[in-house]
Amino acid sequence: MRKTDKIRIPQETIRRLALYLRSLRKLSQQNLTIVSSSQITNHLNVTSDQFRKDLSYFGSLGKPGVGYRVDELIEHLEKILGVDSERRIILAGVGKLGSALLAYPGFLNFNFRIVAAFDNDPVKIGKKREGIRIEDISRMREVVSRFGVRLAILAVPAESAQSVAEKLVECGIRGILNFAPVNLDLSQKVYVLDVDMGTELMALTYFSRRVLL
Amino acid sequence: MRKTDKIRIPQETIRRLALYLRSLRKLSQQNLTIVSSSQITNHLNVTSDQFRKDLSYFGSLGKPGVGYRVDELIEHLEKILGVDSERRIILAGVGKLGSALLAYPGFLNFNFRIVAAFDNDPVKIGKKREGIRIEDISRMREVVSRFGVRLAILAVPAESAQSVAEKLVECGIRGILNFAPVNLDLSQKVYVLDVDMGTELMALTYFSRRVLL
Repeated sequence: MRKTDKIRIPQETIRRLALYLRSLRKLSQQNLTIVSSSQITNHLNVTSDQFRKDLSYFGSLGKPGVGYRVDELIEHLEKILGVDSERRIILAGVGKLGSALLAYPGFLNFNFRIVAAFDNDPVKIGKKREGIRIEDISRMREVVSRFGVRLAILAVPAESAQSVAEKLVECGIRGILNFAPVNLDLSQKVYVLDVDMGTELMALTYFSRRVLL
Repeated sequence: MRKTDKIRIPQETIRRLALYLRSLRKLSQQNLTIVSSSQITNHLNVTSDQFRKDLSYFGSLGKPGVGYRVDELIEHLEKILGVDSERRIILAGVGKLGSALLAYPGFLNFNFRIVAAFDNDPVKIGKKREGIRIEDISRMREVVSRFGVRLAILAVPAESAQSVAEKLVECGIRGILNFAPVNLDLSQKVYVLDVDMGTELMALTYFSRRVLL
């Protein structure tokens, strides 16, 4: 988590908005046009109060006792999150995890498209995985600039994570989804979101033990 | 996020405790014995106030102006999180993501050991990946009981996530780290922690745009 004075909305609110959006799209596929907050938050274990509070940061929508227009709220959330148009991302590191991420179908659902992947292994460079060409890291600046990319997924080994992350920032990347289990030390110009399986599992251990009580 | 009356500690506090633990282990490797809160939270973008508040849920350690004993705080956090002894986990779904997770070195660092993996593909069943035998899902109950497993990683396709999750709960699993991009509808006896790349990327998009302002 990077905090700057400019970021005042809690990170958890933004994560929940993304979950609401996922839920709304599902309701839309079921041809629902007006829904209640509890239909949106069903299975998310978020209270209706929390839902309304999260939305209130961005001006309110929906009428009390009437509900929310599904298409309107989807559009609203997509604009807030910045996913109303395609977002291009690059992947750094095409090892086992990187390869799995290239094949992950969930990205396209949210308008994210991986436009290039990078690795330093000469055996991989020039080959294609899931239709995406693996490039040498030395070509990163050119690719980032050509595609106007601002987001990157970092899936390199822990030892090289810091140096590759610095390279990403140098090339103009402003948001990094970091899968390497290290705390990156970067400038305030980039936002880092850590995805750490070990940390997640520790949180899970804690909460699953409480469930047993 | 599942909430029950018994869970009063914010999920974010628990996640941060896991990050503090990771940070402390690193400091311990550097042979430091007494550290300040800012040394622990360095690179985590957590304020010292937040750090103290997080710890205060579990009784305080450390002396003002003196700092924290690294080994003592590590032990304290490990106990809180329940990672002071080995935790066995199973993996459901050995596709691309599941295979990458089997190879993920970060689990062992935190005392997590994947003891078995399950798939429904006859071609995979009976084979070994990363030294772990892939079993038929029908053998799940037996394996869970034999190894005393309470935690599972769910990495099956979205379509089968709900039914496999139900099977996990039936077999005695009490915590699920869910990588399938669906909202699981399960009993209150199990704690589900969702890891959704699409959601993470949307949060990242939002925050990285703020950084640009």
